[in-house]
Amino acid sequence: MTNEELFREIFNRHTFLCVGLDSDLTKIPKHLLGKADPQFEFNKAIVDATAQYAMAYKPNLAFYECYGKKGWESLEKTIYYIKEKYPYMFTIADAKRGDIGNTSKMYAEAFLKNLPFDAVTVAPYMGEDSVAPFLQFPGKWAIILALTSNKGSFDFQMLPILGDSLDHPPYLHEKVLQKSKEWGTTDNIMYVVGATQASHLKKIREYVPDHFLLVPAVGAQGGSLQEVAKYGLTKKCGLIVNNSRAIIFASDGEDFAEAAAIEAEKMMNEMRDILFKYEIVKY
Amino acid sequence: MTNEELFREIFNRHTFLCVGLDSDLTKIPKHLLGKADPQFEFNKAIVDATAQYAMAYKPNLAFYECYGKKGWESLEKTIYYIKEKYPYMFTIADAKRGDIGNTSKMYAEAFLKNLPFDAVTVAPYMGEDSVAPFLQFPGKWAIILALTSNKGSFDFQMLPILGDSLDHPPYLHEKVLQKSKEWGTTDNIMYVVGATQASHLKKIREYVPDHFLLVPAVGAQGGSLQEVAKYGLTKKCGLIVNNSRAIIFASDGEDFAEAAAIEAEKMMNEMRDILFKYEIVKY
Repeated sequence: MTNEELFREIFNRHTFLCVGLDSDLTKIPKHLLGKADPQFEFNKAIVDATAQYAMAYKPNLAFYECYGKKGWESLEKTIYYIKEKYPYMFTIADAKRGDIGNTSKMYAEAFLKNLPFDAVTVAPYMGEDSVAPFLQFPGKWAIILALTSNKGSFDFQMLPILGDSLDHPPYLHEKVLQKSKEWGTTDNIMYVVGATQASHLKKIREYVPDHFLLVPAVGAQGGSLQEVAKYGLTKKCGLIVNNSRAIIFASDGEDFAEAAAIEAEKMMNEMRDILFKYEIVKY
Repeated sequence: MTNEELFREIFNRHTFLCVGLDSDLTKIPKHLLGKADPQFEFNKAIVDATAQYAMAYKPNLAFYECYGKKGWESLEKTIYYIKEKYPYMFTIADAKRGDIGNTSKMYAEAFLKNLPFDAVTVAPYMGEDSVAPFLQFPGKWAIILALTSNKGSFDFQMLPILGDSLDHPPYLHEKVLQKSKEWGTTDNIMYVVGATQASHLKKIREYVPDHFLLVPAVGAQGGSLQEVAKYGLTKKCGLIVNNSRAIIFASDGEDFAEAAAIEAEKMMNEMRDILFKYEIVKY
């Protein structure tokens, strides 16, 4: 999908919600655990219940990898299920991969060629040749970590870099934006910017005015959608906002899918209001 | 394994060689491709042929992940085979993982609890809470990326950080060492330092004088073992030097295992000479 195609989905469907499939077996409803593939059954029900409110799904690889080959099977079934039933959905492998060139190439193929994911999250620490292999698939994306939502983001991402200006030295995450945006285009690079860091979004938009940002941590991790919209929106939306736990674990009873739908609908309603308020979608 | 136990293996067996199992199906001998599990058959033969010369094995996750659940099965069989037949071997999941705390916890469990790996390579960009979950397993290790061997290492790892000294600002990778060594001990943290960056090893040893360093890129990627030893050795060795392609792909014929053994033996001989030369092992 191109930048323009993503915007068209958002424009037509009035949502920029991504549902994170952090499908932890210790947290999914107990009555599913007797099924042959509880993780897939859970994902299928969540996806079917939330598809009308979401424009993206993001399985978090750790929650599949920890169950070994069984987990990989659940992941594979999930991504094929989404892509077959909802081919217009944007799908993100939240894997935070990145290695030397010949190794990153294999990671890129794992998700973007051998599986039908549209995008992979990528860690930038190893630089250009660790990211470039993810940019070789037309219509597919690398989503590079810039400023994350966790406490540890202050350890390195906020370090001031010695450069032209001693008064306003850029932070490491700003150097990551500045340098990495040269490696691709607004049609194959997005950035992860945590919602807990909304105050930095204004500055981030100076570096990447037109790139899509994937924003986690609205909800369970405490970020505000209104703040994110205020500083992060572009004329073509430019935001994909993720929520995982508040939606998928809204209930751990038999009604888990209905409860997820209610939460997803709430978020979509808030997003629709924002799209109208900022005149991204007009009456 | 503790730092001391690792040193004892090196001391007794006169080697600090790690063999990287980057077992790319397009590069392994063609006659193996007819077997039920070519990747495992290849690994088994390589391990059996090189075990007397190596003290560690490092499967590179990308080369398994790209084959989906089949690849995970080959990985699982490989790690159990090594741990059962050669329980004294140090085993590293070269995965370069790292995410927010609750996600990193699942990655840590995937490799250090649900599989019997001794160590996982970890990317530091997301800071302390992304690394800490890997430090919760007694006798197991996080191997944090510091200065890698690839061209892209110059993009961010070599950025000068604004700090106390304008004349000698620390590089990002030095800040990573300085900060992250506080998160654990010399018994649960190692660092990745590429052999192509041997000239930086001297400075790196000022930050982490006693930590084990995992050094890739001796051989195929052009690093020199003599240079690495000169700047990186400690009194208790403190180095694990990896070689992947020059050993495992020494031949693509029926003699691949024998050819791998010959290369591994050469490296071990060079390592033994170094251990005696620097009086880490004495006559």
